[in-house]
Amino acid sequence: MRVIVVGASGTIGQKISEALEPNHEVLRAGRHGVDVSVDIMSPDSIADMYKMTGRVDAVINASGGANFKAVSDLTPELNEKGIESKLKGQINLVLLGQEYLNDGGSFTLTTGVMMDDPIPLGASAAMANGGVKAFVKSAAIEVPRGIRINCVSPNIVQESWDRIGGLFAGFTPVPADRVARAYVKSVEGAQTGQNYEVY
Amino acid sequence: MRVIVVGASGTIGQKISEALEPNHEVLRAGRHGVDVSVDIMSPDSIADMYKMTGRVDAVINASGGANFKAVSDLTPELNEKGIESKLKGQINLVLLGQEYLNDGGSFTLTTGVMMDDPIPLGASAAMANGGVKAFVKSAAIEVPRGIRINCVSPNIVQESWDRIGGLFAGFTPVPADRVARAYVKSVEGAQTGQNYEVY
Repeated sequence: MRVIVVGASGTIGQKISEALEPNHEVLRAGRHGVDVSVDIMSPDSIADMYKMTGRVDAVINASGGANFKAVSDLTPELNEKGIESKLKGQINLVLLGQEYLNDGGSFTLTTGVMMDDPIPLGASAAMANGGVKAFVKSAAIEVPRGIRINCVSPNIVQESWDRIGGLFAGFTPVPADRVARAYVKSVEGAQTGQNYEVY
Repeated sequence: MRVIVVGASGTIGQKISEALEPNHEVLRAGRHGVDVSVDIMSPDSIADMYKMTGRVDAVINASGGANFKAVSDLTPELNEKGIESKLKGQINLVLLGQEYLNDGGSFTLTTGVMMDDPIPLGASAAMANGGVKAFVKSAAIEVPRGIRINCVSPNIVQESWDRIGGLFAGFTPVPADRVARAYVKSVEGAQTGQNYEVY
């Protein structure tokens, strides 16, 4: 299959690309994309990416951010990163990409454990994750041409523990290559509307 | 208690106001608010509302909309109503209102059944609902001064069945006054971080 991996240079995106490359043509995309450059916060940039890649069999997104702030410090302005990047960025990859997906193709987005197991400072990220999860579940019942749509909800990964583990007190980090397998399941399997928890 | 009900003239908002009025001072707010005018899509308007009301014990929101479109017809632009109104509108009521809430006060937002039991055309609304639910669950662990935050997820209500029941094939509508009781539970009870399903 021909697969776009957005966020391919990130910790999880790298492992996804490595897991898919033996069997698929992987187009690595991202702000510093090796194959295609894209900023998911810009619908124009997403549209340009799809014009560049043409039709594909799968789109995976492993990018998107949000500000980590206590609710008492979170302003509408600081909440915008989560809205524009992790939420709208991912959903616009679907809305603008559906016509580029071959029949039976798939979208796989990324949520995250903090929507189910809240952490301090995580409300804006949780909001974005919850929005993506619900969109995926709902969109799955009506996307046409056998197209499937899932998301993967990773726990904190071992590779990020030294950098951000302090936000995840008492969590048991998982290896990024285990998270990557959930994306492979979404692409190569037949399920739709799922949120694969890798906790 | 002194309670703001945003969306007080809506089908559910009216029942909430009626349920609270015997025991509380209810400030009815909304675009056509009897007591206070507010457009939740505008952070400035929300800020003005709170300046007008001053400190309160509870804020309930029963307003917010999204476009109902098939995913194949949903554009980033059409998705904006759900983002700006049902999602950001509700979250900004919390972010901008927390300083106006008395110690031990509560926020109660509104989600909806279609995030759990998807309907055609409902992906944008589901997205907003899922974002609100996850935000509420996460924010609840860190809002200060004993402030609580919950949401209510109503099924389609009997009073709206003739108008929009066609979108909810096979659903069993619930009376709006039963939905209103969940808001009373949130305001007068002691739970936090809950999404009360009235299905």
